[in-house]
Amino acid sequence: MSAPARMIGVGVGPGDPELMTLKAIRTLREVDVVAHFAKAGNASHARTIAAAHLRPGVTELALRYPVTTESPKDAPAYCGKIDAFYQDCAVAVAAHLDAHRSVAVICEGDPLFYGSYMHLHVRLAARYPTEVIAGVTGMSGCWSAVGTPIAQGDDVFTVLPGTLPEADLARRLADADAAVVMKIGRNLPKVRRALDRAGRLGRALYVERGTMTDAVMMRLADKPDDAAPYFAVVLVPGWEKST
Amino acid sequence: MSAPARMIGVGVGPGDPELMTLKAIRTLREVDVVAHFAKAGNASHARTIAAAHLRPGVTELALRYPVTTESPKDAPAYCGKIDAFYQDCAVAVAAHLDAHRSVAVICEGDPLFYGSYMHLHVRLAARYPTEVIAGVTGMSGCWSAVGTPIAQGDDVFTVLPGTLPEADLARRLADADAAVVMKIGRNLPKVRRALDRAGRLGRALYVERGTMTDAVMMRLADKPDDAAPYFAVVLVPGWEKST
Repeated sequence: MSAPARMIGVGVGPGDPELMTLKAIRTLREVDVVAHFAKAGNASHARTIAAAHLRPGVTELALRYPVTTESPKDAPAYCGKIDAFYQDCAVAVAAHLDAHRSVAVICEGDPLFYGSYMHLHVRLAARYPTEVIAGVTGMSGCWSAVGTPIAQGDDVFTVLPGTLPEADLARRLADADAAVVMKIGRNLPKVRRALDRAGRLGRALYVERGTMTDAVMMRLADKPDDAAPYFAVVLVPGWEKST
Repeated sequence: MSAPARMIGVGVGPGDPELMTLKAIRTLREVDVVAHFAKAGNASHARTIAAAHLRPGVTELALRYPVTTESPKDAPAYCGKIDAFYQDCAVAVAAHLDAHRSVAVICEGDPLFYGSYMHLHVRLAARYPTEVIAGVTGMSGCWSAVGTPIAQGDDVFTVLPGTLPEADLARRLADADAAVVMKIGRNLPKVRRALDRAGRLGRALYVERGTMTDAVMMRLADKPDDAAPYFAVVLVPGWEKST
């Protein structure tokens, strides 16, 4: 192909294929190889989003995570396994680059914001020409779907993983004007208690599959149960016009 | 026109027109009126980004801020003036909606993330059909241009306005894994001291016009002066792969 051998991290946005950028689409038309991360046994979400824009017959490189369940991130066995996995991924991508094939690594949301792509970036960007194409983040997709102004003016805005200890969550929620809590899943009861301790439960919104057609959104205080997928988010809007 | 009367907040991304989404572009083709905020005497940045996608002859509504300089946000005269301005803007947009004309309000970045659009949203969304189209944020544009992984895994990520007092900035910078400091301008010396007090100056990156062709990026510690535009940002990456 005509494009020089380079790696491109391509953000494909939060889920709605129409939230892909022109630059992402042009890049997918130009590259030799499209790589995507997915859980073992699952289709890659990024590939599903971008499917209509892959060239017919383009080479695909599926990077399949070795584990499918949430594991404590500091468990040594898990860390070793996942680190070896990212190393193998980097070797596979580098093999294409060494053969003068350009590789787009497609990513849900934005590649450098909590994305798997950055594990390739830190291993390869110093050795190969590399470019990153920003994408609409999942959290932007969520607050836009809900139509909720999240932060304004001099607001302090914070993104918190639901995996934090309850006391730490409560302290940080009370200390920020606006917040997004990610990685909800089985952390929801704890997140709910932390919001209550911080005095923010009344403003919190629960969003599931925010930019899909089957999105679920409600005030968290109205959610009658604690069942939640890992990728649900809780939004705490910082700003409210009083008039 | 065929589209029903509704207001749409349209994110046009951080600056590069290629970072507009398909949905933003389709919407601009469909609406009757395109509204945009700008400083008095300046072209609207959002309009410049979206210019190629405006329908020839589309009605434009320019919303011009009454003030051009940075003012203390709590100065009563400033607040009254700016509040009256947003109220006038809402009346102007509502007049089009009442005449059954659809109105796209185009916004740099993402409409509900520190955007002027939300001043219209809170005044009109309860009265008219309203939709928000998420966009790539300015900060995503910046860290992608620099190629810097900003946050990963269980990182706590925080957005801070450079207008905060130095001690508060220093405390919050020390408390977050990753941070973006916005509204730099004349706050740069203070931001620099706060980063130093937080032990984060060595990791901080200074970015000016992040997604323009004339972007300036450097380690903040290497920047020899304190001259900075208001829209410069400082990135503090939270995550670094040690291998």
